[in-house]
Amino acid sequence: MTSAEAGGARALPPIGVVGTGLIGTSIALAAARLGHPVRGHDADPGTLARSAARARFEPVVSAGACSQGAAIVFVCTPVPAIAEAAAACLAADTNTLVTDVGSIKSQVLVEVEARAGRGRAGRFVGGHPMAGSERAGPEAASAAVFDGAAWILTPRDGNGEHVDRVATWIRGVGARPMVMDADRHDRLVAVVSHLPQVVSSALMALAAREHALDPDLLDLSAGGFRDLTRLAASSPPLWTDILRTNREAVVPALTRFVEALVEIRDALEHESPSGLERVLDEARAARLALGTKPQVRAGVAVLQVAIPDRPGVLAQLTGALATHDVNIEDLQIVHSFEGGRGTAHLTVAAELAEAAAGALASSGFDPVRLA
Amino acid sequence: MTSAEAGGARALPPIGVVGTGLIGTSIALAAARLGHPVRGHDADPGTLARSAARARFEPVVSAGACSQGAAIVFVCTPVPAIAEAAAACLAADTNTLVTDVGSIKSQVLVEVEARAGRGRAGRFVGGHPMAGSERAGPEAASAAVFDGAAWILTPRDGNGEHVDRVATWIRGVGARPMVMDADRHDRLVAVVSHLPQVVSSALMALAAREHALDPDLLDLSAGGFRDLTRLAASSPPLWTDILRTNREAVVPALTRFVEALVEIRDALEHESPSGLERVLDEARAARLALGTKPQVRAGVAVLQVAIPDRPGVLAQLTGALATHDVNIEDLQIVHSFEGGRGTAHLTVAAELAEAAAGALASSGFDPVRLA
Repeated sequence: MTSAEAGGARALPPIGVVGTGLIGTSIALAAARLGHPVRGHDADPGTLARSAARARFEPVVSAGACSQGAAIVFVCTPVPAIAEAAAACLAADTNTLVTDVGSIKSQVLVEVEARAGRGRAGRFVGGHPMAGSERAGPEAASAAVFDGAAWILTPRDGNGEHVDRVATWIRGVGARPMVMDADRHDRLVAVVSHLPQVVSSALMALAAREHALDPDLLDLSAGGFRDLTRLAASSPPLWTDILRTNREAVVPALTRFVEALVEIRDALEHESPSGLERVLDEARAARLALGTKPQVRAGVAVLQVAIPDRPGVLAQLTGALATHDVNIEDLQIVHSFEGGRGTAHLTVAAELAEAAAGALASSGFDPVRLA
Repeated sequence: MTSAEAGGARALPPIGVVGTGLIGTSIALAAARLGHPVRGHDADPGTLARSAARARFEPVVSAGACSQGAAIVFVCTPVPAIAEAAAACLAADTNTLVTDVGSIKSQVLVEVEARAGRGRAGRFVGGHPMAGSERAGPEAASAAVFDGAAWILTPRDGNGEHVDRVATWIRGVGARPMVMDADRHDRLVAVVSHLPQVVSSALMALAAREHALDPDLLDLSAGGFRDLTRLAASSPPLWTDILRTNREAVVPALTRFVEALVEIRDALEHESPSGLERVLDEARAARLALGTKPQVRAGVAVLQVAIPDRPGVLAQLTGALATHDVNIEDLQIVHSFEGGRGTAHLTVAAELAEAAAGALASSGFDPVRLA
């Protein structure tokens, strides 16, 4: 590592980012916020330019150029391109740690070892931040996306120290590192991430086909339908790669989900209301236990407030809370209604719930504590 | 109708509400906002008391007592109780129009005619506001829930005038009346409302079962999973009734959905990436066309703004827009991230997008126009 490449007099070592879409640009923003110099590369010059403009990093001509002198390189390319980029980074600087953000881990580890060789692959730590969006591209990036998110790291024999170094960095951007075996990761995300994507796309595709036969169909769709189909707006090429690569876990997860649906259909068809209600009960209990925000599962209160449709009303509402120094943990305009007016659900720390309700009431709102 | 019951010197006739849960209480709030005196009844005295306290209406002892002298009675009970309540209301005052808000229409019409007789059933107009929530009870009610929502009305031979009167009232609370045949309504809601509920519950039930085997599973769940399972928190008895009653449309819709899933599973299993990507493309195009809010499908812009986690920041953001007289059509904290910090998506009228972005930038935010 030359001193120039290490950033000269800077306190923190450079970070490399290869693949500067939504997640790559978000990492660049988070690294810059921590004070790291950042170098980025993307195979697409337009994406690289937009990302560099947004996150103000140094664009470089290759993956290897990101790696030279960097403490960690984050490979944020689509899954099929990870191994090649990671091998280039591992070869370009024999001290750099390389990690990725791909949604599948087992196959990536195998491919990196095949490309880079067993020795160099020891400096590769598989990673997967559970932060994403149905949106894509540098424009949708934010340094805040990792805050509170689980960020999986998959170790291999003998690289525990490297895993620890990546975990420390990840904690620095506000995420929660979780170390687990790559196979286990792939089985779990098949259920909580890949299956929901398929379900959302399948529901939207079915509704689109039926809407072609009855053009009033989608006019009847309300908030529930919108919630379920939001993910269907995600990038098709990206998800085709993810689903194919994790086929071995996604296909059985889909089969189990189809079985769960058929169980409900059979209960309906054979007039078994108790069987039907049992599944709905089971699901409801689990959803309520899930809470609304992982890091504040306990200790929060939710206030419901009606929001009339006029300029400034949200300013009035949030201003009333700011004046009383109440932080809003979460604010959700309830989309089940999707009117110009709406209802907001405000999440605040439980011990501030009374103060919040009082502040809102004294500003003319009518808050109702839901939880 | 006695003059006392008609509300004496008041300008607007009384409205009756039978069943004062989420939707009943919301109708009472909306009617009161328009200036109608409201009478309400609920079979559960506790629910009635909470609803009357929240919406400040006159609680009465029976469905029939809601009806006497009322212009319109809204029957907002669970589906199995609609026909009995409607028949009581039709019998108690021979001038009152009676409508309901049940999620299924064909069977309700048949049952009302069986209970009330063909003559009286002419004053019954089947109705279904496409506004709801995974929440239940008077506490979750809001007069704003109907604003912009589709509200289906199902006519029967010869009662077009009655349908028109109900439609006029519905327009007054900001909803969009849509008149359609009961059978067609039931087929359409099976796809856009009942199927999503089943899908959401089935996904949450499956994940809960698998979480019991690996307790890290739900820790990996991010915003997409939460979006898809939000509806699973809905009331199981309510939905058991709805799904059973609309069995004839829900079972085939479930079958078609299972076929759509199996189509994707087969494409995955047989390594047909083009088949997979075609479905994802089809779904994405349809979801983007759906827009974010029915009544503002065209002419809006969406700005993305990063929201740091500190008291007052939302007040600052909304205040900056209020100062420039920009109305926020919609504000969504992006739940894909679910951190203490987050990213907000602000929807504003397209012609105000530049002004909004300028106002935010001059207050230290970094807005990015997404759409």
